[in-house]
Amino acid sequence: MNDLNAAAHALVAFIRDGIPLARTMAIELGSYDGHTLVLGCPLAPNVNDKGCAFGGSLTSLMTLAGWGVVELALRQRGEDCDVYVGQSAVRYLEPVWGDFQAEARCAEEADWDTFFATLDARGRARIAVTCRVPCDNGKTAATLEAQFVAKRRAPAAE
Amino acid sequence: MNDLNAAAHALVAFIRDGIPLARTMAIELGSYDGHTLVLGCPLAPNVNDKGCAFGGSLTSLMTLAGWGVVELALRQRGEDCDVYVGQSAVRYLEPVWGDFQAEARCAEEADWDTFFATLDARGRARIAVTCRVPCDNGKTAATLEAQFVAKRRAPAAE
Repeated sequence: MNDLNAAAHALVAFIRDGIPLARTMAIELGSYDGHTLVLGCPLAPNVNDKGCAFGGSLTSLMTLAGWGVVELALRQRGEDCDVYVGQSAVRYLEPVWGDFQAEARCAEEADWDTFFATLDARGRARIAVTCRVPCDNGKTAATLEAQFVAKRRAPAAE
Repeated sequence: MNDLNAAAHALVAFIRDGIPLARTMAIELGSYDGHTLVLGCPLAPNVNDKGCAFGGSLTSLMTLAGWGVVELALRQRGEDCDVYVGQSAVRYLEPVWGDFQAEARCAEEADWDTFFATLDARGRARIAVTCRVPCDNGKTAATLEAQFVAKRRAPAAE
């Protein structure tokens, strides 16, 4: 397991330990290459009354993947921040009838260099993240565009 | 219990029966007056790693309240439709440190008359719904603006 993979596994363990609903959703790591984070879920605990994936599960998985890709970028740089979602726009395009994944990366109009420069200058910065749930047939089932805010944690008082 | 309340209780039972994650979230009915549907959740099963409400739970509850207010309006008129969320925009404004509720109603720019007229003409219609999670201090913790689509179910073949 390389360092990126180990960091991503640690993040997913952190998510499952800290967020009971993520544990119920049975969220697991798909992959992480330093740019794109893929998280997955089985359908069974995330099903709705129609037999397809519950919209709340799709959005939760996409939001967590987006949060995770920001958290991992910060951890790679040794930054200790609180990261939270500020706003998001979701489009539900196709029903999802099986297990599903969400792929998150920095949005095209955003870049990590600006984000880290702002964080260095102000102790706080925001970044746009884009996320999608692919279908088996190559289409996209859902998309999320979200703004995440990172804020440096105050060092603990001695 | 009046008819509106009975219909809302039946809807919440339907949600909890059909969506395992809603059961885990422990979603319950707040109130329904024929216009505004209020759903609630305890914090414990919906907490995140920071000790406040998980964003996925806030969005899931708001989306279900929005879906529910459309479903109830249809049921009151005797319509048998599939209702699904098309898109949504969420703003996370304040952390939520206790049990929480989501209040959903038809958006200001939308109206039920147009929605039902379109449904009558085309068998399909969309409506904008607005939803908010209030804080204890009178502020708003989160908002959701969403489009829901209702589509008449084909009558069962004889």
